[in-house]
Amino acid sequence: MGRNSNSRAKKTGLSSGSLVHVGRRKIDRPRITILDYDAERVYEKVVDSIDECFPFHQTATVTWINVDGVHDPDVVEKIGKTFRLHPLILEDIMTTSQRPKLDELDEAFYIVARMVDLNERKTEVITEQLSLVFGKNFVLTFQEEPGDMFDSVRERIRGGKARVRKLGPDYLAYALLDAVVDHYFVVLENVGDRIEKLEEELIRNPQTETLHAIHTLKREMLLFRKAVWPLREVVAGIERQESPLVRAATNIFFRDVYDHIIQVIDNAETYRDILAGMLETYLSSMSNRMNQVMKLLTIISTIFIPLTFIAGVYGMNFVHMPELKWKYGYFVVWGIMIVVGLGLVRFFKRKKWL
Amino acid sequence: MGRNSNSRAKKTGLSSGSLVHVGRRKIDRPRITILDYDAERVYEKVVDSIDECFPFHQTATVTWINVDGVHDPDVVEKIGKTFRLHPLILEDIMTTSQRPKLDELDEAFYIVARMVDLNERKTEVITEQLSLVFGKNFVLTFQEEPGDMFDSVRERIRGGKARVRKLGPDYLAYALLDAVVDHYFVVLENVGDRIEKLEEELIRNPQTETLHAIHTLKREMLLFRKAVWPLREVVAGIERQESPLVRAATNIFFRDVYDHIIQVIDNAETYRDILAGMLETYLSSMSNRMNQVMKLLTIISTIFIPLTFIAGVYGMNFVHMPELKWKYGYFVVWGIMIVVGLGLVRFFKRKKWL
Amino acid sequence: MGRNSNSRAKKTGLSSGSLVHVGRRKIDRPRITILDYDAERVYEKVVDSIDECFPFHQTATVTWINVDGVHDPDVVEKIGKTFRLHPLILEDIMTTSQRPKLDELDEAFYIVARMVDLNERKTEVITEQLSLVFGKNFVLTFQEEPGDMFDSVRERIRGGKARVRKLGPDYLAYALLDAVVDHYFVVLENVGDRIEKLEEELIRNPQTETLHAIHTLKREMLLFRKAVWPLREVVAGIERQESPLVRAATNIFFRDVYDHIIQVIDNAETYRDILAGMLETYLSSMSNRMNQVMKLLTIISTIFIPLTFIAGVYGMNFVHMPELKWKYGYFVVWGIMIVVGLGLVRFFKRKKWL
Amino acid sequence: MGRNSNSRAKKTGLSSGSLVHVGRRKIDRPRITILDYDAERVYEKVVDSIDECFPFHQTATVTWINVDGVHDPDVVEKIGKTFRLHPLILEDIMTTSQRPKLDELDEAFYIVARMVDLNERKTEVITEQLSLVFGKNFVLTFQEEPGDMFDSVRERIRGGKARVRKLGPDYLAYALLDAVVDHYFVVLENVGDRIEKLEEELIRNPQTETLHAIHTLKREMLLFRKAVWPLREVVAGIERQESPLVRAATNIFFRDVYDHIIQVIDNAETYRDILAGMLETYLSSMSNRMNQVMKLLTIISTIFIPLTFIAGVYGMNFVHMPELKWKYGYFVVWGIMIVVGLGLVRFFKRKKWL
Amino acid sequence: MGRNSNSRAKKTGLSSGSLVHVGRRKIDRPRITILDYDAERVYEKVVDSIDECFPFHQTATVTWINVDGVHDPDVVEKIGKTFRLHPLILEDIMTTSQRPKLDELDEAFYIVARMVDLNERKTEVITEQLSLVFGKNFVLTFQEEPGDMFDSVRERIRGGKARVRKLGPDYLAYALLDAVVDHYFVVLENVGDRIEKLEEELIRNPQTETLHAIHTLKREMLLFRKAVWPLREVVAGIERQESPLVRAATNIFFRDVYDHIIQVIDNAETYRDILAGMLETYLSSMSNRMNQVMKLLTIISTIFIPLTFIAGVYGMNFVHMPELKWKYGYFVVWGIMIVVGLGLVRFFKRKKWL
Repeated sequence: MGRNSNSRAKKTGLSSGSLVHVGRRKIDRPRITILDYDAERVYEKVVDSIDECFPFHQTATVTWINVDGVHDPDVVEKIGKTFRLHPLILEDIMTTSQRPKLDELDEAFYIVARMVDLNERKTEVITEQLSLVFGKNFVLTFQEEPGDMFDSVRERIRGGKARVRKLGPDYLAYALLDAVVDHYFVVLENVGDRIEKLEEELIRNPQTETLHAIHTLKREMLLFRKAVWPLREVVAGIERQESPLVRAATNIFFRDVYDHIIQVIDNAETYRDILAGMLETYLSSMSNRMNQVMKLLTIISTIFIPLTFIAGVYGMNFVHMPELKWKYGYFVVWGIMIVVGLGLVRFFKRKKWL
Repeated sequence: MGRNSNSRAKKTGLSSGSLVHVGRRKIDRPRITILDYDAERVYEKVVDSIDECFPFHQTATVTWINVDGVHDPDVVEKIGKTFRLHPLILEDIMTTSQRPKLDELDEAFYIVARMVDLNERKTEVITEQLSLVFGKNFVLTFQEEPGDMFDSVRERIRGGKARVRKLGPDYLAYALLDAVVDHYFVVLENVGDRIEKLEEELIRNPQTETLHAIHTLKREMLLFRKAVWPLREVVAGIERQESPLVRAATNIFFRDVYDHIIQVIDNAETYRDILAGMLETYLSSMSNRMNQVMKLLTIISTIFIPLTFIAGVYGMNFVHMPELKWKYGYFVVWGIMIVVGLGLVRFFKRKKWL
Repeated sequence: MGRNSNSRAKKTGLSSGSLVHVGRRKIDRPRITILDYDAERVYEKVVDSIDECFPFHQTATVTWINVDGVHDPDVVEKIGKTFRLHPLILEDIMTTSQRPKLDELDEAFYIVARMVDLNERKTEVITEQLSLVFGKNFVLTFQEEPGDMFDSVRERIRGGKARVRKLGPDYLAYALLDAVVDHYFVVLENVGDRIEKLEEELIRNPQTETLHAIHTLKREMLLFRKAVWPLREVVAGIERQESPLVRAATNIFFRDVYDHIIQVIDNAETYRDILAGMLETYLSSMSNRMNQVMKLLTIISTIFIPLTFIAGVYGMNFVHMPELKWKYGYFVVWGIMIVVGLGLVRFFKRKKWL
Repeated sequence: MGRNSNSRAKKTGLSSGSLVHVGRRKIDRPRITILDYDAERVYEKVVDSIDECFPFHQTATVTWINVDGVHDPDVVEKIGKTFRLHPLILEDIMTTSQRPKLDELDEAFYIVARMVDLNERKTEVITEQLSLVFGKNFVLTFQEEPGDMFDSVRERIRGGKARVRKLGPDYLAYALLDAVVDHYFVVLENVGDRIEKLEEELIRNPQTETLHAIHTLKREMLLFRKAVWPLREVVAGIERQESPLVRAATNIFFRDVYDHIIQVIDNAETYRDILAGMLETYLSSMSNRMNQVMKLLTIISTIFIPLTFIAGVYGMNFVHMPELKWKYGYFVVWGIMIVVGLGLVRFFKRKKWL
Repeated sequence: MGRNSNSRAKKTGLSSGSLVHVGRRKIDRPRITILDYDAERVYEKVVDSIDECFPFHQTATVTWINVDGVHDPDVVEKIGKTFRLHPLILEDIMTTSQRPKLDELDEAFYIVARMVDLNERKTEVITEQLSLVFGKNFVLTFQEEPGDMFDSVRERIRGGKARVRKLGPDYLAYALLDAVVDHYFVVLENVGDRIEKLEEELIRNPQTETLHAIHTLKREMLLFRKAVWPLREVVAGIERQESPLVRAATNIFFRDVYDHIIQVIDNAETYRDILAGMLETYLSSMSNRMNQVMKLLTIISTIFIPLTFIAGVYGMNFVHMPELKWKYGYFVVWGIMIVVGLGLVRFFKRKKWL
């Protein structure tokens, strides 16, 4: 992660607005799809060249252009020119370690969000940058790689009956953000499951691996929080702007997304607290084991050390040791040793160590 | 808990406003009761179909419709249509992991609160979602399962003399919220009792179970706080809105509920601090025991190891060992051993270890 | 404490405003005193029935009615009617676990403060609720039990020359709050003394009791803070309200009380930090002792275990052990053992363990 | 410190505004100096009686009266009358445990600041209260004892060319506060030096005394922070008030003092963080030593305990022990013991314990 | 660091505005360069005397004067007079331990920023003060020593096509701040690399040096944060001021810098959290090792101590010890010892200690 978030260092010294891709390149060439619709009609195409998209910009229909892969300056720059985006916005689109934010442009909103997902084996949380621009009759989305959480939105557009077809690009922007936020719940559920497993492990048989797993989860929650927390401000900002781009009827939907984000943050905080509690539990169960080990050592040593001493005494080779010649000396010594041993055992029982 | 709060993940990808129940289904079919009253008259019925309720909506009397079980989209949708609730509100009603919040609708307030209760064996804190809508002449409440803390409110309505009969739905909403908040005190008292028991245990004989109990309580307080904290904003919001739906005379009652919530939060914070202190006490009492164990081991070892060495020396089989042949050698050695032993005991006494 | 703060649970389910005493009953029957004065005249009486007080309400003089014991609904209700207090206020007066707060009524201010005192043996901090209502020409105070910190105020009123005689009920209210706050300093001084004693103990000879004492003090500071912190808002609120009930000339006095409260909070925070530091010191001094114990054990064991081994070797009974028959074998072995022992002592000295 | 900050407890019960000195009396009789100047002229005198000062009050020149020692109510009261200060202000002047604060009076500002200095051996941080009143043509300063950080200001006034001679009492007030704040840097530098010394000690040879020194520094920083933090608000307040007493030209200087205070606080916070880190380092270096001690014990015990056992076996006196009669039995046993010993040494080397 | 930040103590007692260099002197004599440009022309020179710069002040072109080395009061004072800077500003320029801040002067902005860099071996974070003044047609920069992060800006100015040539001094100020902030990313990347290395070390083989390295990094992040955090307010302030000195077209660029600073802070916070987690990991891995050591000791001792006791018993020299004369006594005893030993090994295996 350290890697990723700082890789913009390589851009140092360049004039602002010079388009250089900053981030890991995850795909060979950008894949561009277009979805153009109004209440009556839907048109959908995977285009070869970005130029094919531009005619749609003129029409009154809602045009959604989705670009997977943001490392090609030409593509980004062409779109920028057509939709009149400020060079700094284009730069932000190509720098994939942005923090979620909202920029109000002259005729559009620019939103950066972070899509959070699990890796393929569902063992790690990964994030991907989503740049979303929406204006009077268009929505642009830029993702780092193909494969996203927007299929359900596309399905609804194709279906034709859904509210999305009747409402404008602000509603589409909402629907996309909502899909992103809904996916946060999926990730949280996975984290919740892993926490539950770890909790059982913690009670049954805590191991060094348990500790590592807790720390890993803690760090993932850190990453998660970093991706989600600023989005709250973004969505609150859309509501607050009172721009003509967002209709009153759509505002209540953004309010709904806002509530969901609050809830995501709330749950993430709870998980953090739970993980902190688990760390404490781990440490005290470790120190508990240590206590047990020490007790055993103490009990064994404390019982046998005096007995060994007694045996040692009668192992001495003095010529004049009267006890040695007594007929029952040996048995008396055994008796003494048994009494001493049992006395110590009783002592430990009284102290509740045994 | 992890389970519950994320189960909305299963809804991912659906259009907002599509009614799907999200949460554990706790009851077979919804149970709907109606209570219609004004200063003179009370009418009460358990209805079979939600349609029976609607005529009451037109009258000037206060109509309280209570629904136990929110998993049936039909019921919720019908109510939504009659009372003109936004689809997102209906969605929230059916998603039972909501955070407490206040939505101001066109002609009504929508309030989400969380009822906190103890499980049957009074050993665990559980929460249930209460959705409350109140408008000009109606109050709707949605709960996840039958059995609630509102019987005293119903009693007062039936009784006929109480203030609730003379005042409108805003006062009824207040009375219901007040009942929810009063129950928080019941739960806190139970927690307080359990803390007191644990404190005694902690002083008398701390065990691993004590630690687990402290951690469990800590997590319950986390859950409790999550349920109560946002309610503060909700109630403060009702006061602030200055809506015609809330009369000035009722406002002072909401202010009173607000004070109670602050006090609940205050007490919960105090319990959290006390629990944190108890954890510290547990850990230091553990390390204290460890110290005692180590001291005993050290004392026993330190006294007997040198003595055993002396005995070992005179157990050697050298042919020429003058001491062995001395008549009083054996007794002199005993003397030396006693002197060494007593000296060490005195040393430990001076060090205050014995 | 847990007890007290939640005992309002027993009121659950009652309509708001129904007067039930919530809290520990500390006195048999309420004791009511009246003090009526203006610049020329003072009248003082312990009354049998609350009715005796009411004539004074009509006069232009300042009337101070003090009630010790708030468990009798009749008394509280009668006063409430005469002075036109809202039922919720009466309820608050009878519920003695209130958080400090300020309510602005139509013609009066209602203030809840908590008097903090030490128990009789000066070993514990206890709190008592003070309800204070002041209006145009009256001040009402409600305490849980007789015995308070207001004698100096009474003395000044009786004396006749003091500023209190010339100014109105707002100044009397100030004087009473000032007395409460001044007492906080007395309590803090006691806490400061106990902390100083503990610090000496901590350096001289820390014990498990020291730890318990630190924890007790920490919890008392928690309680103290809970009682004092909200009072700050209360007094700031009186200043801010700009009510005709508080003259400009009195405002500066409330500002002074405010400064004192800030200072109390400041000192209490400092004590909390000091106590936290003391806990750390205790723990590290404990672990220090442990280190010493372990070192001793290690030194003794490490010196004697090898020596005992050597003695053990020559205690073996092999027929062919050439050393045993050497004339100086025994002495040579002693030499070896002394060399090994001294070598180890030097080793420990070099490691700075001895 | 506990002492000092609460000693106002002894004033409990007195009417506000009754002048009693609260704090440690540090000097026999107050020492009063007067400095009267304008752009042309300077007059300076140590006066016997406070009455000598008052004629200067009438003139248009800037009059600076400095009082060392605030325990004499007569002196304070006389000044109070002449300069028309509210009784509560006089009370504050005589109570030397005030928190820094700003009071805007009718025709003057009242400022409480805390001068922080080192004790004579430069080993401890001590604070002293400075009360500063400035009005249209006068500045009053009250200190607890003679000796201060204002000599450079006096020097500049005497010198005659400095800006202070041309500007009014607001600039003098600024110059005095600036001197106080500049001294904070001196104290911080001393603390910084002590921290550096401790850090070396911590790496070279940490001792219990090191721990005590860290804790002492931590507590001093607590005291320091308490003295400095509220001053920030005070200076910000002077700027904000927009009083005619503070000219626009002086405002930029107060802004400069404000920046310095921020920087002092910033550095103090950094020291706190560093000290917290040093505590962690101390504890982990302690536990590191403990580890080393335990390892040595374990290695020695683990090597010799089995060997001693072997020796013990052949020290048994059974009649039939074939090994004992073998010619090379003794040497074979030595061989076994060497093999076992070396094997264990290798085991420890592989585990990286040796 | 302690050193540096307090060295202003040496200035104590001087009148404000007297120019004395406070900070470490890092260069012999100041090196002054001038860069004067507009859209058509660039003029660049290293000047010997500051006087050469002043003619450029009159022209309409953008004049950038950069001074490396701020210890010479003459140079700073001359510039101050020409560009009419307040004496306090000059004082701030010469005091190189300033916190980042923004001062709005009559006709210029004064900005303090801290340039963060790595030392030559890339093992430590160091900071240097940058004072930046920009007005209607000039930018002044003051650095402590030659060598900076502005070469790319100079390159772009010389190149002639860049936006910087067409826009005014506000854009140049932006470009310089942007270069400073971009360098923060370089430093963060280095920190990230070091953290990654430490993490591997922590898992592979944690050592005392690892701990020291973590602590060093933690302190560097402290320093870093202190340098970066206040810059956020500075840049936000430039936007907020709405001064004619900053054109609307430039504002969006400052907004961009602001976003970058937020991101730097965000990453720095994440590193702090990661470092805190690493400390925890270190400590628990240490205590884990300790556990292993203790277990080994316990196992060895617990197995051999009883066996040694048995051997001791049959080493006693009693005349009447029947077992000694049994033919198979020796072998039976061996049998018992093996049984006891194996029993204990099984016990440990069941306890999962082996």
